[in-house]
Amino acid sequence: MLFRTLTIVGVGLIGGSIGLAAKKRGLAERIIGVGRDAVKLDQARRLGAIDESMELCEAARIADCVVFCTPVDCIAEQVKSVAGICRREAVLTDAGSTKGEIVAALAASLPAPARFVGAHPLAGSEKKGVDYAHPDLFEKRWTVLTPTAATSVEALASVQSFWQALGSRVRLMTPEDHDRALALTSHLPHLVATALAGMLPEDWRELAATGFRDTTRVAAGDPEIWTPIFQQNRAAVRDALTQLEAKLQEMRGALTANEITRIDHYLTQGKRVRDALGS
Amino acid sequence: MLFRTLTIVGVGLIGGSIGLAAKKRGLAERIIGVGRDAVKLDQARRLGAIDESMELCEAARIADCVVFCTPVDCIAEQVKSVAGICRREAVLTDAGSTKGEIVAALAASLPAPARFVGAHPLAGSEKKGVDYAHPDLFEKRWTVLTPTAATSVEALASVQSFWQALGSRVRLMTPEDHDRALALTSHLPHLVATALAGMLPEDWRELAATGFRDTTRVAAGDPEIWTPIFQQNRAAVRDALTQLEAKLQEMRGALTANEITRIDHYLTQGKRVRDALGS
Repeated sequence: MLFRTLTIVGVGLIGGSIGLAAKKRGLAERIIGVGRDAVKLDQARRLGAIDESMELCEAARIADCVVFCTPVDCIAEQVKSVAGICRREAVLTDAGSTKGEIVAALAASLPAPARFVGAHPLAGSEKKGVDYAHPDLFEKRWTVLTPTAATSVEALASVQSFWQALGSRVRLMTPEDHDRALALTSHLPHLVATALAGMLPEDWRELAATGFRDTTRVAAGDPEIWTPIFQQNRAAVRDALTQLEAKLQEMRGALTANEITRIDHYLTQGKRVRDALGS
Repeated sequence: MLFRTLTIVGVGLIGGSIGLAAKKRGLAERIIGVGRDAVKLDQARRLGAIDESMELCEAARIADCVVFCTPVDCIAEQVKSVAGICRREAVLTDAGSTKGEIVAALAASLPAPARFVGAHPLAGSEKKGVDYAHPDLFEKRWTVLTPTAATSVEALASVQSFWQALGSRVRLMTPEDHDRALALTSHLPHLVATALAGMLPEDWRELAATGFRDTTRVAAGDPEIWTPIFQQNRAAVRDALTQLEAKLQEMRGALTANEITRIDHYLTQGKRVRDALGS
């Protein structure tokens, strides 16, 4: 048992999976859900992801750990709103896909040593909602933690134990490195998938087989979640996009010049990396 | 029973699946495999994809249907090499991912009415080899047929029945329309997946989660198969690439200008198309 009371703010796919994983692994005695939508909170309780629901302030006041699983443009404000009323030994963490803006906003307003530790579990899906939550969602996945010089060492240790106890492996990065890496590994692929899907004429939809479906799957993600991610990480996404455009121009040049050995080289190099990732 | 003797040239994932599907559905009395590699032909026989193997000329001479499942840069030459020795009523088809060059090369050398009907079953995979073959690979998938004015009407009817009997739905297109459509629905996604995979630094590989893996999955495809596809369809792929680059530049412009409603619009439009495709 890590915490007596765990509060989860935002009980969707990620928040719900945290609740189910914590329950399955006996990490908390009591799990409280916080959200705007009573129907979804009811559903989360029925599925066993939370024990009960409360207003944010009330649930934060009695928690040993509060984890924020709301869209990235809500997290910093929500953390600030409860930072003054939490128990002195409570820790705060989040599951946001961007870290720079959130961590910077909190650095400016939380007293040091801060008991908030930014986190990003790399376990998303294009699916949405607690109905898709799964107790093993974090199993063997990576969670990036982004502590700063102001972060309390005890809070970092506690938050690290929490994400590990949920099943994930933990890697520490600066918020800036996280955002640069995720721009390339997640946000850029999302943008490209969106562009490809948007180019498909209706008459050709039935010609979109497994390859197209795989390549564009993430484009089914919820814009309510993704638009704020792009807003917060737009500088790094723009850099990654510039890099991709240069690569595509190179490839187009090889096609134009009929330099087939260059095409073969790109394909061979891409295959080597993709094979290394596994299925 | 559609054919007494079916000859499959190239018994890999696609050729092997044709054999298994034909066997399962009782489409041919005798299935002959043709290939360069005796070990692979043995494996195809062990798996039940073919009954026996022979040299191309011998196997073509006695076949009622010959289907070519070799890389796209081999197909036209192989068809030409057997066209003169096949039975008068035999039909020829293929499974190549490009159609324009193959059909044009054959139009110039086969006597009309031609008994070759170009085909492309949209049922690929990044996997390779007869070990991954499956009798239901074509089930509910589309197969594009690309007859021309010179195609024999009986041959078209017979080849269409064949692909339908394997489980697929058939759509007729001109070779040029096929190549333009597939440039967008298959070849461009492959190139983009290759570019994204090639951009991933080794240190960030563990940060490549489901989204990156889905988006780049096709990059694991075999360059030996894909390089000739890009060579044969390079004009249409280049056009599709130009179109994608324009779209990505637009998106980069929106990020630079922090025009978040435009980003939201792209994401919403992409999601609408991707949702329409289903999983």
